[in-house]
Amino acid sequence: MSKQKKSALQEKKGVSISEITNSSSIESIKDKRKAKIDTNALVTSILKKNITALSRAITLVESKNQKHKTQANAILKACLPHANNSIRIGITGVPGVGKSTFIEAFGKHLTAIGKRVAVLAIDPSSTITKGSILGDKTRMEDLVKDKNAFIRPSASGESLGGVARKTRETIILCEAAGFDVIIIETVGVGQSETTVHSMVDFFLLLKLAGAGDELQGIKRGIIEMADTIAINKADGDNLKKAKLAKVEFNRALHLYPEKESHWQPKVMLCSALKNEGIDAIWNIILEYVKTTSKNKFFNNKRSEQNKFWLIQTIEEQLKSDFFNTPKIKKALANQIQLIENNETSPFAAADYLLNLSR
Amino acid sequence: MSKQKKSALQEKKGVSISEITNSSSIESIKDKRKAKIDTNALVTSILKKNITALSRAITLVESKNQKHKTQANAILKACLPHANNSIRIGITGVPGVGKSTFIEAFGKHLTAIGKRVAVLAIDPSSTITKGSILGDKTRMEDLVKDKNAFIRPSASGESLGGVARKTRETIILCEAAGFDVIIIETVGVGQSETTVHSMVDFFLLLKLAGAGDELQGIKRGIIEMADTIAINKADGDNLKKAKLAKVEFNRALHLYPEKESHWQPKVMLCSALKNEGIDAIWNIILEYVKTTSKNKFFNNKRSEQNKFWLIQTIEEQLKSDFFNTPKIKKALANQIQLIENNETSPFAAADYLLNLSR
Repeated sequence: MSKQKKSALQEKKGVSISEITNSSSIESIKDKRKAKIDTNALVTSILKKNITALSRAITLVESKNQKHKTQANAILKACLPHANNSIRIGITGVPGVGKSTFIEAFGKHLTAIGKRVAVLAIDPSSTITKGSILGDKTRMEDLVKDKNAFIRPSASGESLGGVARKTRETIILCEAAGFDVIIIETVGVGQSETTVHSMVDFFLLLKLAGAGDELQGIKRGIIEMADTIAINKADGDNLKKAKLAKVEFNRALHLYPEKESHWQPKVMLCSALKNEGIDAIWNIILEYVKTTSKNKFFNNKRSEQNKFWLIQTIEEQLKSDFFNTPKIKKALANQIQLIENNETSPFAAADYLLNLSR
Repeated sequence: MSKQKKSALQEKKGVSISEITNSSSIESIKDKRKAKIDTNALVTSILKKNITALSRAITLVESKNQKHKTQANAILKACLPHANNSIRIGITGVPGVGKSTFIEAFGKHLTAIGKRVAVLAIDPSSTITKGSILGDKTRMEDLVKDKNAFIRPSASGESLGGVARKTRETIILCEAAGFDVIIIETVGVGQSETTVHSMVDFFLLLKLAGAGDELQGIKRGIIEMADTIAINKADGDNLKKAKLAKVEFNRALHLYPEKESHWQPKVMLCSALKNEGIDAIWNIILEYVKTTSKNKFFNNKRSEQNKFWLIQTIEEQLKSDFFNTPKIKKALANQIQLIENNETSPFAAADYLLNLSR
């Protein structure tokens, strides 16, 4: 039992969102009891690297209950001065590229060299693809059991914006809990990459060799974001193809304009299954951190990301406030009808609606 | 003189923005006199295809003066039922691709077969590149003299959003004035293409053969938007290279997912200078209109574009209202400082600022 209590998997199960948001009487009693946990005590435990406390704080961050939100904000404020000390790594790749296997091998390598690793996910699947990241309990079996690893699936039933905010706040909590590396996993389905890119220091794109994969499936914008492309499954019969792909990607990457970081993206080969090339990728990340710390890009980027999230959050809330006003909802439908009938222009309609809300 | 009065160039010069917005006494008198022009008379003249009236209405649309704006809105409202009947074509390409020469040859072809053509521009150059579209009076000399052509440069000194709104409204005026084809020109510098794409029926990308140009200079997103790629300067020594480029582009275009329009983008060769291939491009556009009218995409797209502009205008105004409030401006700077010092999170800062404005 005591061994289990230390495992990330066990703690993760501690308090689920449904328990907190469910309003049935039994849940409500549980709820009140849990809400009483003293904020200061929770923060102290988090700073002592207590995983139960960390899990509980994340659950508060994820809750829709107003009291929990208030408590979460207090915890975040207390944790902030202790955050900011990890390397934040975004990992993406289309389904089938071997993301779970890679993250497991990569995470195990890090814990083996004494690092503590948190794995989070931005998972738009619940609303878009119905796929699932980190949802399958049988995945990353070894990493789940590792006491220096903490795995937390994406909050579900949420907009990408909502998930993003919660993940950003969870990063702060994990950093306060002393994690050295934070991995944010996402799947290659479009906007989620941009979201992950805007909250990490280093962006790793996993690819497979061959099969026109270079042009299809993955958007060029995602390749542009990558600080390193790792060609996975570079083993056995695949190795030759993977080496060719490496040459091709290197050539393609050199055609892009220089990055603001002055970092020339690397192309690496690896086999997560055979645990080959994983250490080399970690070394590249360390080299990246060294280079960009020296030229100040590392901190500048974090600062820009903070401003981005500030502005982004405000803009989303302004839109949501406006378009969810009942008066506007009704008038909007009406104005759209007038536009369809050529009786008003989109601009006149916009002016009309804006005046309604002033 | 009377011949000159019919020319687009002459009318274009009629009333400049500076005359209308300048507040010096002489200008102010001119201003008042012009504002008195009766809205109904102006609309009647526009519907009679009077170019002087059209120019004057566009100048009102472009004005920053509140009285002019009110009059412009009344004119637009009256013109709306008579709009919507043209083919709207977006044309883009990097500098040097021969856009002016192409538009001149294309426009002349259209007027020769009895069409009336308006050429507008989305020109972010005034704020970004300091380049200039349609600014050079010596360009498109023949088209400028053509009484069935109307050329109007982009409003200057404006944000892309501001220019976009004015161009959209100018399209309505030109359509009410009976123009059959509206060409919106832009230069390949990023966001302006997306803006143009969101207001046209057909998007034409001009390219040159060779020189790695396929990967560099033009963003993949722009290729994705193209309904046809025309490889210009396909003449003389260039012809062989152009034919090869055509094969390459065709292959690349087939790798993209099918468009919502079900239209398979075409690759064409042309030489604007030698007036070759221009008619074929017009025929492709007619084929596109026929195909997409039949499958309803044509009207659906216009309807979606209207909704896009409605929402876009509202969102931009909400942001501008919020961030330009003096109280918010001051508090924002302060919150950014607190974020930099790790004393608040971007999300807590956003909540604070939003509460300030409520």
